[in-house]
Amino acid sequence: MLADITAKFAQRDRVMSDNNRKQALLPQGADVLANPQGTAPGILWQPRPGLHLMTFPGVPRELHTMWHSSATPYLQAQGWCNGTIHSRTLKFWGISESGLAAKVHPFFKLENPTVAPYASDGVIKLRISAKAETLAAAKQLIEPLANQLRQIGGIDCFGEDDDTLGDAAGRLLLEKQATLAVAESCTGGGLGAMITAVPGSSAYFMGGIISYDNTVKEQLLGVESLTLSEQGAVSAAVAEQMAAGVRASLSTDWGLSVTGIAGPGGGSREKPVGLVYIGIANKSETHHMECRFGHRKDREWIRLMSRNTALDILRRALMDNT
Amino acid sequence: MLADITAKFAQRDRVMSDNNRKQALLPQGADVLANPQGTAPGILWQPRPGLHLMTFPGVPRELHTMWHSSATPYLQAQGWCNGTIHSRTLKFWGISESGLAAKVHPFFKLENPTVAPYASDGVIKLRISAKAETLAAAKQLIEPLANQLRQIGGIDCFGEDDDTLGDAAGRLLLEKQATLAVAESCTGGGLGAMITAVPGSSAYFMGGIISYDNTVKEQLLGVESLTLSEQGAVSAAVAEQMAAGVRASLSTDWGLSVTGIAGPGGGSREKPVGLVYIGIANKSETHHMECRFGHRKDREWIRLMSRNTALDILRRALMDNT
Repeated sequence: MLADITAKFAQRDRVMSDNNRKQALLPQGADVLANPQGTAPGILWQPRPGLHLMTFPGVPRELHTMWHSSATPYLQAQGWCNGTIHSRTLKFWGISESGLAAKVHPFFKLENPTVAPYASDGVIKLRISAKAETLAAAKQLIEPLANQLRQIGGIDCFGEDDDTLGDAAGRLLLEKQATLAVAESCTGGGLGAMITAVPGSSAYFMGGIISYDNTVKEQLLGVESLTLSEQGAVSAAVAEQMAAGVRASLSTDWGLSVTGIAGPGGGSREKPVGLVYIGIANKSETHHMECRFGHRKDREWIRLMSRNTALDILRRALMDNT
Repeated sequence: MLADITAKFAQRDRVMSDNNRKQALLPQGADVLANPQGTAPGILWQPRPGLHLMTFPGVPRELHTMWHSSATPYLQAQGWCNGTIHSRTLKFWGISESGLAAKVHPFFKLENPTVAPYASDGVIKLRISAKAETLAAAKQLIEPLANQLRQIGGIDCFGEDDDTLGDAAGRLLLEKQATLAVAESCTGGGLGAMITAVPGSSAYFMGGIISYDNTVKEQLLGVESLTLSEQGAVSAAVAEQMAAGVRASLSTDWGLSVTGIAGPGGGSREKPVGLVYIGIANKSETHHMECRFGHRKDREWIRLMSRNTALDILRRALMDNT
């Protein structure tokens, strides 16, 4: 085991400390649970009959991987898992939690599968959970219900489980063989980061311009100096010029832009914190949307809502655009 | 209370559903805990003497704010908080957890304050916690120890508590009245997003170019086509040309760039997943750093390490640059 840890350090070109040596110590008779992502391994130990101990490193990322690769198969092999609970989560954007609940509340009374609403980071979710003898049987219970709920949700339902709005927009761009560029002000690169979090996004995402300062909006995106001085950087006209400008500069099919006031400073009576304009351009049209994400919300929330809303606008535009 | 909720919906230009009406129901004799960030309020209820119930909405962001604004003062007013525990966390980059532990392990035996090492998302932390009658007394216990540990940590200690490497680099840019632009490939905008997560970053951050596609590297950053074809987009030369190119294009004092293979695809024997080049340029010099963040690590981790390492390189360069 020390050899394995030493090899891992050698691979990374790092020096091993005495502390790392300690990670190689095991109780007598214990087995190693392999940690493919880090140096500290886990332990599987049965100090006396009927008592099974499993230890894992405290790094959440490593624990998560090891749970699936080591713990689950072990628990199943012991025959300690009777039946299975499986869940599928439908994800929504553009409808409030209570708005969605009003549409689907009769389903909340079901017992198997169950349907429960959740919300996190502005994404509204319906989790469908079924208990059955096997995974296949649980999935079969969920399937028709998921279809029914997706139909009720309509265009507001953008995906399932680990899907983000970046995945949803990306699938449509891929399907339509269209390319995208972004122009970002208040999101500062976060929109591009969300799009490129999707493996394979290089097939449709060319890049973008982070035009945080107004000189960058003028010089790299061609936003008119008069528009900036008369209407301000946070305005519908600037959002549209940013979207059209980045589309032209990067020669893409679509241009998507965000300009807004993320706070905590910079707000005024006419333009409060949370006011964000999103621009979208293709070869024939340029549009914008005005959003008010709340003047009491924090910077992180406003930036999060901005990038998700921008991706949702693109998603809906791509669904319309046949 | 219904009036308050209705007003909140009116402010946001949304329609109230029957479900929202339900949020206005309270047990008889209960008090409302105000929720400044959402519609669902909390409840403070004493159903019988000696039994105090507090409820909060399930949205973590709202719960967190309400805990500090309502729960803590209430618990203190009841006299249920004897003494206080206060913590200060020192944050490190550029040293491993076990490397730091080897330097400071004698402090781990202290009893009040205590010193404990943590690591999350690649940031290594030392948390110093003290228990005392008052907050001021706890802070006084921590102060000399924090100074001592910061001194031992040296340049690897980049900040405290909520500080990110974006804050640390930002403070130095502000202090030196220097401006920054970024050129991003595998991070896709995440470096800019991290820099602009800091309120007031517009004082030193001008913007950047997300050059995901090679045509963008050539056309907007002036990366040479020959360098791209001979050395590849993930190379030291391209990282340096990106940093120098974005600095010239946005007319800033500093240019910072990232190009790498975030995976899961795109790796090869010579250039494995996790290979990342970071470039840095000022008016007189251009440098690069080659990083190997591990070919088994996931895309998110490699992108996270890339943006943090880039900011750390900038931070060290700014500290050198007098």
